[in-house]
Amino acid sequence: MDILKIIDKKRKGLALSKEEIDFFVKSATDEKIPDYQISALLMAICINGMNKEETFNLTVSMLNSGEIVDLSKIKGIKVDKHSTGGVSDTTSIALIPILACANLVSVKMSGRGLGFTGGTIDKLETFENIKLDFTKKEIIDQVNELGCIICSQSSNLAPADKKLYAIRDITSTVESIPLIASSIMSKKLASGNDLIFLDVKIGNGAFMKDLKSAKILASLMVEIGKMYNKKICAAITDMNQPLGNGIGCALEIKDAIDVLQGKQNRLADLVQYIATKIMVLSGKYTEKNALQKYDEIIKSNLAYKKFLEMIEYQNGDASIIENKITKMKPTDIFTSDIEGYVESYDTQKLGMLVCDMGGGKKTLKDTINHFCGIYAYKKIGDKVSQDDILFDIYNGKKMSIPEIKTELASCIKISKKKPKNIPKLVFAFIS
Amino acid sequence: MDILKIIDKKRKGLALSKEEIDFFVKSATDEKIPDYQISALLMAICINGMNKEETFNLTVSMLNSGEIVDLSKIKGIKVDKHSTGGVSDTTSIALIPILACANLVSVKMSGRGLGFTGGTIDKLETFENIKLDFTKKEIIDQVNELGCIICSQSSNLAPADKKLYAIRDITSTVESIPLIASSIMSKKLASGNDLIFLDVKIGNGAFMKDLKSAKILASLMVEIGKMYNKKICAAITDMNQPLGNGIGCALEIKDAIDVLQGKQNRLADLVQYIATKIMVLSGKYTEKNALQKYDEIIKSNLAYKKFLEMIEYQNGDASIIENKITKMKPTDIFTSDIEGYVESYDTQKLGMLVCDMGGGKKTLKDTINHFCGIYAYKKIGDKVSQDDILFDIYNGKKMSIPEIKTELASCIKISKKKPKNIPKLVFAFIS
Repeated sequence: MDILKIIDKKRKGLALSKEEIDFFVKSATDEKIPDYQISALLMAICINGMNKEETFNLTVSMLNSGEIVDLSKIKGIKVDKHSTGGVSDTTSIALIPILACANLVSVKMSGRGLGFTGGTIDKLETFENIKLDFTKKEIIDQVNELGCIICSQSSNLAPADKKLYAIRDITSTVESIPLIASSIMSKKLASGNDLIFLDVKIGNGAFMKDLKSAKILASLMVEIGKMYNKKICAAITDMNQPLGNGIGCALEIKDAIDVLQGKQNRLADLVQYIATKIMVLSGKYTEKNALQKYDEIIKSNLAYKKFLEMIEYQNGDASIIENKITKMKPTDIFTSDIEGYVESYDTQKLGMLVCDMGGGKKTLKDTINHFCGIYAYKKIGDKVSQDDILFDIYNGKKMSIPEIKTELASCIKISKKKPKNIPKLVFAFIS
Repeated sequence: MDILKIIDKKRKGLALSKEEIDFFVKSATDEKIPDYQISALLMAICINGMNKEETFNLTVSMLNSGEIVDLSKIKGIKVDKHSTGGVSDTTSIALIPILACANLVSVKMSGRGLGFTGGTIDKLETFENIKLDFTKKEIIDQVNELGCIICSQSSNLAPADKKLYAIRDITSTVESIPLIASSIMSKKLASGNDLIFLDVKIGNGAFMKDLKSAKILASLMVEIGKMYNKKICAAITDMNQPLGNGIGCALEIKDAIDVLQGKQNRLADLVQYIATKIMVLSGKYTEKNALQKYDEIIKSNLAYKKFLEMIEYQNGDASIIENKITKMKPTDIFTSDIEGYVESYDTQKLGMLVCDMGGGKKTLKDTINHFCGIYAYKKIGDKVSQDDILFDIYNGKKMSIPEIKTELASCIKISKKKPKNIPKLVFAFIS
């Protein structure tokens, strides 16, 4: 096959065959075609698009480029949940133990954060010595015994996606729905779970800004999952403000614990929404049953116990919760100098601020200060009195308090009138 | 400036500013941006296009990347003629001496052929020892004395175009009207002539196949030329059959000599058409005057003398015409086994056959056999009797006669009925 003919076809807006896509993915992964040809084809895909069949074939080609995790030795329906990334989104950490209590097992393979979005793995490392890299046998044993695991994603999943993503990142070809869908789904399908819940975030703290594109992306991913015989559904949820209160590793662990201990807030609402949707999709619960079961699990404190059990099983020091996480004291506070309502957040800026404070990574080499971050008290539409605390500041050594306060002032907008458009939590559900 | 932002803009179909185009061209030429970013932008341009202003700016950026030949020391209007390339197109070699006799001087900088199209420089090398590389002073001196020169194009013209073309060639981004227009025009404008005639070929022996695209390309190039204050016009001419009779260096020199000696044929018609158009555009002739002057020049044999003078001035051995070119004997002939009419040629295939026989170059390293080629007797629509000679074969050592005959059989189609669509010589004129 001739890569030039393949590029030519896509330049003209024609659909590529399965064989052509396989040839491209294999040649790119094996470095048998030069980067300038890869980037030319990626740009042509970016502009001229790919139909459903092409996107499915690209996904399958990429997933077949690496290991496909075999979880068949784990009993029951294996559940995966994926978020496209946001600020103060610690849903997975609360969700996984809850699902385990509902007899839905999870092998949650997670990544690290970079830039304004946090990573589940980074957050869990708040627990000193926690084990996050496992052999396949260890994963199977833990899940069969405990019902859940959160672990680092195998570096061997979809290496083709790694190669293509690296080029997309430096050739302005990231923003393409078929390329985003195949990138996410190749890793999800390779990780071997039976049921996938996709949380597609939109808003000023997410990669996707508009509902229309998010719907197209979510629908496409759901279709790809179905074509690969997975149980799959997606929700499009709000990221125009921090989802929880904490931004920063330990603060987000605290948020997850709050949810597991029954605190009612926006994060808890989303955890409940996702958990019950998964329970219903599994076929084991009706909608009503699912809600009942969810309440039972939270009220009985079973989910929180499961969480502690998981942390300890993975060698994490759970005493940190008592000794450190719940005892954190803010370095300073940021208060409102006027009365009014929270009109909006610059969510991405807030995420980036915590990153700059040392709470996240700007480059892969950076180290994280797990106990630094921002705690945001208010949601959009909330009433604010003068001198109300808007943010607690948990400072590290990288920025001064005045610098942080200047940044914070530009991350939140307080206005006199109650805002008309208060973002919903869930904009759409696709199944 | 950030190349990623520039790529992003073009990916979204937005117009690039002069500064952005300058930055891209300069960075690409200086190898300050990697090839994969160049190819991504070229693909985005290919698909999303460029408006007139962008194309003009790209042309000027590329021409400014190298030497701009200063021909101001040559008296009179300096004329350039450019063909987009075809088979048996030896127009320039006949045209230049004719123009000189009409007091229009030419500094015709030409290239070599590659693949199915011949190159003027290769053809002139039929004359042993001919000098084709000149210093600027030598060019000026020859043209001031003789009125014309045909020489190799300076390797220093528009180096940016060389860089971009090399990448386009291997990333399937050649077929783009703004990129083709700016590539041609950057070199034409850099070569310093005052008047430019563009011969845009269409048909199965040309790079462009359809009239619509050719018109868009020609109009765009004419506009760019005008924006750069050149006298410029373009014709769209037929390349659905060999223009002359000879295909191969010496045979094409023979064709040019035939025209200069007053032979009437399709090639002569085009030479006359172009010469008189140029004469009129120069402002020195009316249409009627131009035709009269042309006839005078041919009938008086002045143009042929000028041609011999030019060859000898450039150190070429003109005795080769008498001793070798006019004495060439075909190795074999190819006759028609049926009676009918020439319906069509596969012109590109015919050009490629001569190349395969050794009469042209498939790669830059190949050497050319100047005395090998095909002589095609018939034009589309011509009557053919059984056993009529369709082709003379002047074979080299690379192919066997049966091989050549098999190929020739598939290069021409004879049918019983006279074909309805006989291609015109000139499809459109743009000024």
